[in-house]
Order: sequence, then structure tokens, then C-alpha cells
Amino acid sequence: MSRQLHFNLFLHDTGHHEASWRLPGSDPHANLSLAAHQHLARVAEDAKFDSVFLADSPVLWSDPGRRPAGKLEPTLLLAALAVSTSRIGLIATASTSYNEPFNLARRFASLDHLSGGRAGWNIVTTAGDAAARNFGLQDQPLHRTRYERADEFLQVSTKLWDSWADDAIVADRTSGVHARSELVRAINHSGEFFRVDGALNVPRSPQAYPLLVQAGSSADGRGFAAKWAEAVFTAQPTLAESQEFYADIKRRAAEAGRDPDHVVVLPGIVPVIGATAAEARELDAELDRLIAPQYAVATLAHTLRVDPERLRLDEPLPDDLPSEDEIEGAKSRRTLIVDWARRDHLTVRQLIGKLGGGRGHRTFAGTPVQVADTIQHYFENGAADGFNIMPAVLPSGIEKFAGEVVPILQERGLFRTEYRGTTLREHYGLPRPAHRFVREGALA
Amino acid sequence: MSRQLHFNLFLHDTGHHEASWRLPGSDPHANLSLAAHQHLARVAEDAKFDSVFLADSPVLWSDPGRRPAGKLEPTLLLAALAVSTSRIGLIATASTSYNEPFNLARRFASLDHLSGGRAGWNIVTTAGDAAARNFGLQDQPLHRTRYERADEFLQVSTKLWDSWADDAIVADRTSGVHARSELVRAINHSGEFFRVDGALNVPRSPQAYPLLVQAGSSADGRGFAAKWAEAVFTAQPTLAESQEFYADIKRRAAEAGRDPDHVVVLPGIVPVIGATAAEARELDAELDRLIAPQYAVATLAHTLRVDPERLRLDEPLPDDLPSEDEIEGAKSRRTLIVDWARRDHLTVRQLIGKLGGGRGHRTFAGTPVQVADTIQHYFENGAADGFNIMPAVLPSGIEKFAGEVVPILQERGLFRTEYRGTTLREHYGLPRPAHRFVREGALA
Ligand SMILES: Cc1cc2nc3c(=O)[nH]c(=O)nc-3n(C[C@H](O)[C@H](O)[C@H](O)COP(=O)(O)O)c2cc1C
Ligand SMILES: Cc1cc2nc3c(=O)[nH]c(=O)nc-3n(C[C@H](O)[C@H](O)[C@H](O)COP(=O)(O)O)c2cc1C
Repeated sequence: MSRQLHFNLFLHDTGHHEASWRLPGSDPHANLSLAAHQHLARVAEDAKFDSVFLADSPVLWSDPGRRPAGKLEPTLLLAALAVSTSRIGLIATASTSYNEPFNLARRFASLDHLSGGRAGWNIVTTAGDAAARNFGLQDQPLHRTRYERADEFLQVSTKLWDSWADDAIVADRTSGVHARSELVRAINHSGEFFRVDGALNVPRSPQAYPLLVQAGSSADGRGFAAKWAEAVFTAQPTLAESQEFYADIKRRAAEAGRDPDHVVVLPGIVPVIGATAAEARELDAELDRLIAPQYAVATLAHTLRVDPERLRLDEPLPDDLPSEDEIEGAKSRRTLIVDWARRDHLTVRQLIGKLGGGRGHRTFAGTPVQVADTIQHYFENGAADGFNIMPAVLPSGIEKFAGEVVPILQERGLFRTEYRGTTLREHYGLPRPAHRFVREGALA
Repeated sequence: MSRQLHFNLFLHDTGHHEASWRLPGSDPHANLSLAAHQHLARVAEDAKFDSVFLADSPVLWSDPGRRPAGKLEPTLLLAALAVSTSRIGLIATASTSYNEPFNLARRFASLDHLSGGRAGWNIVTTAGDAAARNFGLQDQPLHRTRYERADEFLQVSTKLWDSWADDAIVADRTSGVHARSELVRAINHSGEFFRVDGALNVPRSPQAYPLLVQAGSSADGRGFAAKWAEAVFTAQPTLAESQEFYADIKRRAAEAGRDPDHVVVLPGIVPVIGATAAEARELDAELDRLIAPQYAVATLAHTLRVDPERLRLDEPLPDDLPSEDEIEGAKSRRTLIVDWARRDHLTVRQLIGKLGGGRGHRTFAGTPVQVADTIQHYFENGAADGFNIMPAVLPSGIEKFAGEVVPILQERGLFRTEYRGTTLREHYGLPRPAHRFVREGALA
């Protein structure tokens, strides 16, 4: 079979566009609604998507005045969705900066058991001082320190997931032995950030580890992805940038001694689908008109670390912005925004419009065939192994994509018409992690 | 309507008896099985139980050789069960010693949203050095310190659950205002253990706070319960001890300025039901024969802080055991065990038999009418507001209790035949917490 596309649905209540909740017919309480999420996950599963995904940060992310700001905790919401679905993968974002590895490794192992092997973890280091201030810190740890902690967090987590051998449980009623104790081992990890004895109190799960996903695009972020990630989300506004990123990640993975095919690159796209190209463009424009500029300016100013007063709606960005090096938050996002504004000579208002919709992700507006063509073009030209689908408006955006774009790609032999495997890793064509005892030859 | 009984089902895979997994027909993988838990919760819901409950500790609790030791993380498992049930309450145990308040308060608020107001939190401080060693510590914090942290943890959590007013969300499409920002407030908590800015990123949930449940029986534990708990689990081996405990908790609650009726006392019982009293006793004895003594001695020695070599199966406990004051772990459990062994002149083997079944909880063995009579007797004689039902063997133990004991109590007008409310607090007859802004008159 030829190389196949992979699709992830970004579950974002009323849609990725910040004004989507204001459209007539939207459910402005979708962010807290189990039923709304069940519907989205089922539409994606019916369309044979690889996975659904929930973004997250342990902080009130946006001004609650502006758009639905409450977010249910992703591992819990996905545990609920595990019951409402049967095949689709379930990827939760969780922070390595504001969790303890024992607790988080356990939650993902539990989700993997509950879902029969469908758990994924989008590993983030969490930018911003506001999050730090919910955890006893005054300022966020340095960007580099956050990635160092993330690396050790993954070392501990993978040791915990390997603390039970796959065949530890024997459940022998006659002898009264439930597990072979010698196949359940303390990990006795002691490092710079963590000391964890283990073993985990959850046996090895169907996938062994949740699928490891990553979304940081700075140099440190890419290095981390090359070492640990099996799937990478990324925001790339142009084809050329997607190609550059794709090549860079595959090269780094190879340099780290891994098979580049075992790192699936998934740029985000915001599909805006119309019966005609003109209708798609009109939908796009209508959404931008609904953005409330006062909030958007405040967010932009925060990301760029500049006084909001200095951002004038009908002027370009100021020249003297802080550089990426001076920013400890989301470095790559700052650079993406600034480069984009300068390259396309955008005013602040125009920039806000673009960010409100795709937030740096590529908007594909057009007819179903045009959208399918662009997807195929990226896929066949070294820019993507699949896509993170981030509809501007939900549920209509995914209903349209599933109903009108997916069948075209299936027809072209580029996307599955049935699930073949049962686990999330099988959907993405990735191997199940071998057990550490076995890798180390200890049980050979 | 006359005063009504309340029932909670302790979800314990194959049953509370440590050898229950060895019985023919048991599912020795039930601890990791969503389906097994769904079945138990549905049986309890069909019988109109108030709630189901999951115990927990962030450590591999028992020797994995001895009985099923893996435990799915309770908040995730209950999020899944929220989808599989519609009315019954869902109580998860979580530790105040090894969590961050922002993360945990958020998980419980999320569970309450996902379940439509059915979340409960069994607040524990987690005894034992082994758990501490999964979180960077060498030894557990002192017993008193753990309860001090628990108290501040609850202060932070309740502030976070109050950080959104009930009517903060307006979702006004026309003006583009989703929430009234002035009704979403930072908490700016700064105390001995925690600094948390807030606000929470989850709006106020159906119940406002999860039902607050507690299970510590030491003096510090009872003081904490009197201040915070709305329901109390407890292990009391005799009627007299149950009465003493019941009176003490109600008195302490009144002293703390609370309505004693707003603290529901639920002793644990292990019902062993037979068609005849003799059959019930025989079932009880069979289970005890299946206990593997080498493991049980090790656990007992650990709880009593004594060298396992000093415990002889056919002799009484040694005289010179460490006192409760010398123990930083589960103080009240140590005392319960020692008092029981001395009072009833038990050998180590006999003690292990009793602990293996009820682990300090009262075993009620008999016919359905005898079990119902004992329940009624406790309920009407100042010993209980209801019970934490901990069947020795599952699912059969709850199927029998639901099918044979519950109808008798319903017939006698002591237990509901239909749910009246929709939230867990409504089941227990408890009021929804008023909002802090309102209590403080800030919005008056
Ligand atoms: C599709 C996508 C989803 C992301 N989701 C999250 C998220 O849920 N939480 C988060 O803290 N960061 C998220 N990020 C941001 C990155 O994970 C990363 O934290 C940020 O880019 C800063 O890291 P960097 O400086 O390495 O780029 C996301 C990025 C992308 C492209
Ligand atoms: C029915 C019942 C259930 C309990 N469940 C837990 C539990 O799940 N996790 C835990 O750490 N302790 C649990 N405990 C123990 C108490 O919460 C408490 O931690 C222990 O008794 C030590 O506190 P104390 O010294 O105040 O008694 C439970 C106790 C009872 C009676």
C-alpha cells in the first residue's frame, strides 16, 4: 500500500477561530460540554481519523471575557471520550513543568488501559509566568531549564512505564501468585530534577507508553522532539516553511539515531470549505469581522512583550521589538508572528485577523477539491506526513471536512477507509516500544 | 419523610477480601478493567446507591505477588464511569501530600462538570515513606505537618472553586462578551505551603465543590473532618466503637460551628450474605483459608513497625509494640489493630484472618434479613447515617446486597426507591456550598 496520510482533529469547542462562539447556531458552552466533545470525536472516528487532541495549560489562558476560557482537564475528558468511542486515538496535552512524573505517568498509563491502547501525550513545557504563579513560583523557569526538566521527566516516565514487564501478571489462583514480583521493579531514579523510587502502580499498558507527541518549534524544542517525539504538531504558515521544518525534524531524528519514519510531522491547517472558492473566502472574512480587537491587541502585546499602547491597529508592528533571545516564553511563536507581519507588510489589524483564524497555522480556503489538492501537494512534496486539522468553526468545520474532503482523499488512495489496527500507534504506523529489561538484555 | 440511609459502594476489583481474586469465577484482571468497574457502578446505581468510591495511594500499595496491585488513577476511571452511569455519585481518593492544589482542584471541577454534579473527593494525607519516595522525599512529612498541609490545600482549593461566580458566564454573542471578567477573580493565595494566583481555568461546577469526604480517624484526622468533611468513612469493628466515633464527629462538627447533620458518618461494613446463617459463616471461613500468610504477616509487621520475625502465627502480638505516638503513618489503624487483638485475645493468625476480610471494618455475616436488621440497628442507635459497603467478593457481593438486602430496607421505608436529586450532594441531603463572594457580602 502506498504511503498514507494521517489526520488529527484539534478539539477546540466552537472552533479554532476566536470569534467562532459568536456565530449564530454555535454552542457557546461547548467548552464544558461532554456531549459537544462526544459529537466531535465521533465525527472524526467515523471519518477514520488517527486521533483527536486537546491543547492545555494549567492557567486561565485567555481573558474570560473574550472567548470561552474554561477548559476541562484533558486526561479526564479523554477518559470520558474513551467510553464514547472505540478506535480513534486520544491525545492529551500535559505540562512537564507543572506536574510530577509519578502522577502524570500514571494518568497516561491509566488512560491507555481505559482506552485499550489509544492514549497519546502532547508533551509541553508551558510558556508564561502566569502558569508558574499557580505553582508557587514568581517567574517561569528559563526556557532551557524547562526543556532540561522535560528531558528528565521523560526519562523518569519511560522508566516507570517499563517498571512492570509485559508478562509480569500471571494471576495463578492455585499458587496464589498474582504477579511475578521479580518482573516488577523499582526504578530508583535520582537526577537533577527528580528522585522517584517506583515501581509504578499501574502495570504496563497496551501501548506500553502513550504515543509521545510534541509541539515546540524552538531549537531546544526541535532537539527534544528529535529525541523523544513520535509525532510533531507544528504551525507553519507557508509551504516553504513546512518543507524546511519537515526536513529539519527528519534530519535531527536521524542524527539522534532514530528512524526518521518514526517521527510523524503534522502541520496544523485551518480548512475553510465552501461550495465555491468565493464562498470559502466570504466565510473566512466574516469570521475576522467578529474578532473584538481590544482583546486581540492585548494578547499580541503580551506575546511580543511590548506595551499594548504601542500597537496601533492601522500601522505596522514597531521596529524595536524584543528579540527571541530576550523572551522566556514561547520563543518560536514570537518569531513566527514577527516574520510574518514583516514579510507580508501587515498592519496590526491585518495581523490580528490572520492570527485570530489560524494563529500561525496555514488556512486552506477553497472548495473540497481544492483543499484535498493542497493537502496532497504538501504530503507529496516533503512538507507533511499528515495534518492537524483545526477547523475555524466547529462542529460544522469537521463535518464538512469529513463529509467532503476525506472521501476525495480516500478515493485517491491516500487515506484509509477502515481502521486496520486497534492502537493509536498502529494508526500512525509506529512500533510499540520494546521493554527496557528486554532492550537491556536483562531478561535475554 | 423519615430519616433515610445512605449507601456508598467501595469499588475494589474482585472484592475487599485480599484472597477474593483466587475464588473460581473471579476476574483476576478486574482491577484494570473498565467493563468490570462499569458493571459494579451500574449494579449500585440500579440499587439507588448514593455513590461509588475508589481508594488510592500514589505508590505500589501491596506486594504485586499477593493480590492485584495495579490501580487505575481514580479521577480518570470515574470520568469514564460518568459516561456509563447517569445518577450515582463518583468519589475519588486523592492525596493532599503529593498533589498541587491547582491541578487537583481542576481535576475535581472537571469531573463535576463531566458528570453533571456527581463528583466527590476522599481527601487523604497518605501514610507511608514509600509514597514519599515517589515524590523526591526520603521520608514522609510528619503526621501533623501532613494535616497542616491538607488544611491549607483545602483553603486553596475552595478559593479556586469560588474564583468564578456562578453567573460569570453570559455568552452574549452581540457584544462579544463571553464572561463578565469582574466575576472571575484571581485568588492570590500565599500561605505556608502554597502560593497560587488563580483564577481556576474551569468555571464553577454544578456542585460548586466536589462532595468533601474524609477517612482519617486520628485526633488530627477527626479535627480535619469536623472542619471540612461532609461525609466521613471510618473503620469501626464494634457497635460501641461506632457509636463513640459517631458522637465524637458530630460533637466536633458542632464545636467547629457547623450543622452536625451536614457531616454524614459512614462506617465500613463487609456484608457476607448466605441463604442461612451457617452458609454465610462458611463463605467467610473459606475466604480466610485462601489468605497467603507470608504476605499478610509482612503487611501487619509494617503497619505495627515491628520486625516480621517477631510475629508468630500461633501466638499473640508481642507486648512491646511501638505506641501510636511513635508512628508517623496511619496512626489510627495501628491502634485499632492492637486494641482488637488484645481485647479478643487473638493470635497473629486469627488477627490476619479478620484483617484480610474486613481490615478493621465490621463484617456482617448472615441472611439478608439479619444483615438488614443490623444495618437498621446501627442506623437507629447513633452509630451511622449510612454505610460504606465493602463486599468481600465482587461482583457477587454487591449483586446479592442490591438484590436481597436493599429491597428489605426499601420496604421498611429506610432507603430510597428512586433518586430524587441529580447531584451527589442532593443524594446525601447536603446543601450546595454558597459562593464565597456572596458569603462575604461582596456582591450583596
Ligand atoms: C499545534 C500546536 C499545539 C500546541 N499546544 C500547546 C498546548 O496545548 N499547550 C502549550 O503549553 N503549548 C502548546 N503549544 C506550544 C508548544 O508546545 C511550545 O510550548 C511553545 O511553542 C514554546 O516552545 P518553543 O519555544 O520550543 O516553541 C502548541 C504548539 C502547536 C504548534
Ligand atoms: C474506608 C476508608 C478508606 C480509606 N481510603 C484511603 C485511601 O484510599 N488512601 C489513603 O491513603 N488512606 C485511606 N484511608 C486512610 C485514612 O484516610 C488515613 O489516611 C489514615 O487513617 C491515616 O490517617 P489517620 O492517622 O488520621 O487515621 C482510608 C480509611 C478508611 C476508613
